[in-house]
Amino acid sequence: MKIIESVREMQQYSESLRNKGKRIAFVPTMGFLHQGHLSLMIEGRKRGDCLVTSIYVNPTQFGPKEDLAKYPRNFEMDRKLCDGVGVDVIFFPPDREVYPEHYQTYVTVEEVTQNLCGLSRPGHFQGVATVCAKLFNMVKPHVSIFGKKDFQQLVVIKRMVAELNMDLEIVGMTTVREADGLAMSSRNTYLKAEERESALSLSRSLKRAKNLYDGGERDAGRIIAEAKKLIGSFPHATIDYVHICDTTTMKDVKRLEGECVMALAVRVGVARLIDNHVFGEPLDI
Amino acid sequence: MKIIESVREMQQYSESLRNKGKRIAFVPTMGFLHQGHLSLMIEGRKRGDCLVTSIYVNPTQFGPKEDLAKYPRNFEMDRKLCDGVGVDVIFFPPDREVYPEHYQTYVTVEEVTQNLCGLSRPGHFQGVATVCAKLFNMVKPHVSIFGKKDFQQLVVIKRMVAELNMDLEIVGMTTVREADGLAMSSRNTYLKAEERESALSLSRSLKRAKNLYDGGERDAGRIIAEAKKLIGSFPHATIDYVHICDTTTMKDVKRLEGECVMALAVRVGVARLIDNHVFGEPLDI
Repeated sequence: MKIIESVREMQQYSESLRNKGKRIAFVPTMGFLHQGHLSLMIEGRKRGDCLVTSIYVNPTQFGPKEDLAKYPRNFEMDRKLCDGVGVDVIFFPPDREVYPEHYQTYVTVEEVTQNLCGLSRPGHFQGVATVCAKLFNMVKPHVSIFGKKDFQQLVVIKRMVAELNMDLEIVGMTTVREADGLAMSSRNTYLKAEERESALSLSRSLKRAKNLYDGGERDAGRIIAEAKKLIGSFPHATIDYVHICDTTTMKDVKRLEGECVMALAVRVGVARLIDNHVFGEPLDI
Repeated sequence: MKIIESVREMQQYSESLRNKGKRIAFVPTMGFLHQGHLSLMIEGRKRGDCLVTSIYVNPTQFGPKEDLAKYPRNFEMDRKLCDGVGVDVIFFPPDREVYPEHYQTYVTVEEVTQNLCGLSRPGHFQGVATVCAKLFNMVKPHVSIFGKKDFQQLVVIKRMVAELNMDLEIVGMTTVREADGLAMSSRNTYLKAEERESALSLSRSLKRAKNLYDGGERDAGRIIAEAKKLIGSFPHATIDYVHICDTTTMKDVKRLEGECVMALAVRVGVARLIDNHVFGEPLDI
């Protein structure tokens, strides 16, 4: 397994692979890897001759009061996990390579970022879109794999790739969960023992919403009210948002018609956790 | 010479060239070609195995009150001129291929677009950066060639390419002029016979600025005042702006130190003309 820190070296390596007709699969991450990330890598391993993963905690997607400084990092653990799933290249660029002095170019995806995390984290998706555009140009993948846990992020990336005509396939993979239903997240490490149970408020309310939908309920307001009530019953859980949106526009819907997603953000202690469920899809909880 | 209208076909053609180890040179244009464009194509011919030029009048770089609808177009004339200088592919996409319904992704370069045409044409450079990012992803060139007449545009594109890590060389070529000094521009076609002389206000004031600089003048205000006085002496010329800027930051300077450019925008009848001179460089007028 190769570790590359320089953008130029990464581009040259990818270009040489492409010139040999090799297919590059790419999994961008912020490190502190868990089973969710590994599931993306295992998929990438199947889809490419060369599997590249990046480990980069992108400062431009964090707000000024968010957890950039304390975001968990452990390169040595990540390196071993990557090795274990057959990653060929870890791309691990330093900040000065990604955002040199006087950096001033940003990619903005407008409509689909207006709601949900775009509302509660201003600037977040501009940071995400910008760093993904940059990473795609650095790694030059044929296919890139993202988790569906960050549902709106996946919508934003797919939109950007299509609209900027990046010649690249984006694949979204099912959220990986703990046995009790908690979606895997690097931020779960923030949870204190006494808060762990409250973190189940997300998956439990999604399950409740799914059951209502499967029972024929199509009124978004009623499903949201039930979900909020359930979250409110957990002692350490504070709702950031609960929305039901159209999966193409990411706009709120009143009635569930077409493909709709319920997306949640809940604070449990210092951890801000997100989760989602696309109605009509399986939810293994 | 091949004419391609579909984005997908263009990408596949470019990818097949790249897979054969061919080098792609690219000249993006808005058509209505003149000697300035042809000089870029002649340079592109030398720098690539395959020379692609695009003809696309990009709506997102025009303001609501600007000349999009009446911008001059003549595909048949352009086709012949391209053929004459050895263009291999004309990429001629329709609007619906470039900006499909619900289009919402934009590239913004911040600081270097604040001054000059960024001031007098709000949104212009976002349109330019966005369409160039898209065209680069459609055509996949190794090298792309731009004219220096649109000096700030060249600064913006170079900045975007560097900061989004596009693996692509940007080349700037000297402005081509009529015998009397008028910079070649598709918009010169807007000039009425009686206005033609006033269009020389731009190149004449640049020449005056150059002479002052060569005589030792380093005060930006004094050079600008002289240029404005000269432009004011032409009956049909109205100043949009006259600036002297640092060529890296595009911020106004008070004294000419480091590399500086004088950039002008002048209205002559309905034509808004631009020109510039980098102090210390030749100016063949």
